[in-house]
Amino acid sequence: MSRIVLRSRLLQAILLATLGITSARSADPLPSWNDGATKQRIVNFVRSVTTAGGPDFVPVSKRIATFDNDGTLWSEQPAYFQLQFSIHRTRKLVGSHPEWRTTQPFKAALENDLATLTSGNGKPFLALTASTCGGLTVTEMHAEVGEWLKSARHPRFQRPYTDLVFQPMLELLAYLKANQFKNYIVSGGDLEFMRAWATRVYGIPPERIIGSRLKTRAVQRKGKPALLRLQEFEFFNNAEGKPISIRKFIGRRPIAAFGNSDGDLQMLQWTTTGSGKRLGAIVHHTDRKREWSYDRRSRIGHLNKALDEAARNKNRWTVVDMKRDWKVVYPFELAK
Amino acid sequence: MSRIVLRSRLLQAILLATLGITSARSADPLPSWNDGATKQRIVNFVRSVTTAGGPDFVPVSKRIATFDNDGTLWSEQPAYFQLQFSIHRTRKLVGSHPEWRTTQPFKAALENDLATLTSGNGKPFLALTASTCGGLTVTEMHAEVGEWLKSARHPRFQRPYTDLVFQPMLELLAYLKANQFKNYIVSGGDLEFMRAWATRVYGIPPERIIGSRLKTRAVQRKGKPALLRLQEFEFFNNAEGKPISIRKFIGRRPIAAFGNSDGDLQMLQWTTTGSGKRLGAIVHHTDRKREWSYDRRSRIGHLNKALDEAARNKNRWTVVDMKRDWKVVYPFELAK
Repeated sequence: MSRIVLRSRLLQAILLATLGITSARSADPLPSWNDGATKQRIVNFVRSVTTAGGPDFVPVSKRIATFDNDGTLWSEQPAYFQLQFSIHRTRKLVGSHPEWRTTQPFKAALENDLATLTSGNGKPFLALTASTCGGLTVTEMHAEVGEWLKSARHPRFQRPYTDLVFQPMLELLAYLKANQFKNYIVSGGDLEFMRAWATRVYGIPPERIIGSRLKTRAVQRKGKPALLRLQEFEFFNNAEGKPISIRKFIGRRPIAAFGNSDGDLQMLQWTTTGSGKRLGAIVHHTDRKREWSYDRRSRIGHLNKALDEAARNKNRWTVVDMKRDWKVVYPFELAK
Repeated sequence: MSRIVLRSRLLQAILLATLGITSARSADPLPSWNDGATKQRIVNFVRSVTTAGGPDFVPVSKRIATFDNDGTLWSEQPAYFQLQFSIHRTRKLVGSHPEWRTTQPFKAALENDLATLTSGNGKPFLALTASTCGGLTVTEMHAEVGEWLKSARHPRFQRPYTDLVFQPMLELLAYLKANQFKNYIVSGGDLEFMRAWATRVYGIPPERIIGSRLKTRAVQRKGKPALLRLQEFEFFNNAEGKPISIRKFIGRRPIAAFGNSDGDLQMLQWTTTGSGKRLGAIVHHTDRKREWSYDRRSRIGHLNKALDEAARNKNRWTVVDMKRDWKVVYPFELAK
């Protein structure tokens, strides 16, 4: 094929792509969001920071958006889905650890006692995670999570846990990406638990997934180097841990951040106190019928201080009311 | 302006850009590298992993290249440039720390005793860095490094330290970037010391700069959140720390890695033991006249095991001989 022909085909392809972009822009980028103040706020924010020559323009390299995961991108009730995985791991390993039947937090895990596991500021949950998700290489951990996701079903919806991601948030991720934002997950969840599925489910590459970290050592497996995760946390990526990790991993302050609990308070403060246009958004769980309804008194997704701060800083913070603002919650509702 | 006109101008622009790419491809992407086996090896590697449909093709998302910094992207003699900064900080702060005049490692810093500071596996250097670079917020640290870079001069070349980057490596970074690689720095140097200048000098964004980390706390400064670096290391990003950080920050195994010392051994092993085509390269300091000459017996840039491993694994490792392979070492030689 001659170069001339090749180039003309390239131009054809580009022409088609250009037409595609034009038509996509005129369509609603957030179809699962009800029209109203919240959606308008998000769209206005994105327009203002991407309008070249405008007063709020932000260059592409600084378009950083960070997202909490549990309760922000997918559900987290009746308990963090990762806790369900740790319970699964406990059951799988108890044969070689008979002492777990009478020791906490393992006993609570074997009894599916979610209340105990999520008490004490999540300490039993963390201890369970370190014990049951540590001791594996990164490769082994991903294989274990992959296996579990295939068979595990959410107790209320009887669906794979990855079905319980929020359709409006998937659209928001895609909308920001189309506007050349870099989307990051900044979650309290275990880094490698998330990386085992989040790239596929959210389209976020592994280098943009930040979570809590277990201590890790370089070891040899079958004569080749491998990375072994120890049974001890190195860093808990929650509350003040979030801005610290954002600095460490990203090195730039986000211009937009999305969370749903007081564990996201510092990330939202860090984001919204930067100069220029900023957006801090809280996903408020107000929909008992389609999802769950909880905030100030909840053990999981405790939302109290951050809700007050959102009310005080309406120019930079916004609250997404799931019941009011979302047409659908889960992708599977669209198939109905 | 009508849409038709706009589109035709766009096509014109694209046509010009396409021609531009064609002409750039025919030009030598590595003009400061002498023709020979090393250059050919690098070019062949890049061609084979970027040839669509070829047996060694690697998709863009997996084109990760990692670079050590000291001795790989810029010089590191007579001592790591960051050590020079820590000495500068010691002198600046000694007024309020009179005890430093008689305590190590501060005494050695005040006496410019580089031998003592780089002895003991670098422990005095690390202690000095923690004491003199900790206690500042990230913003303050960047300001201090920026100030220092303006006035400090390298003792041999009497030039700013950032003049002592390697021209052939700048070309290599650009060549890989043009081939849609993501270049990362993975260095033992302090994360924020590097971020203060490396984005400007190498064109590598902050989220792709990985270094040693000081413990960090979220604090308030003038009523706003700030990040305070403590006077204690959280993680030393050297030797086995490099593959561990690569996993933590990038989440993918590099397909190419560049280092110059035994501190890079594990990064090179981690990179070259992955499946598919891989390249591990060592910058060997062989040019006493233009730069320095050192390897197996050097306290700084100690290169012993990695040199042996390169000799054993010639199919995946290569050694860059500075004297033989580089036409010029520093960018300022080009202006002569």
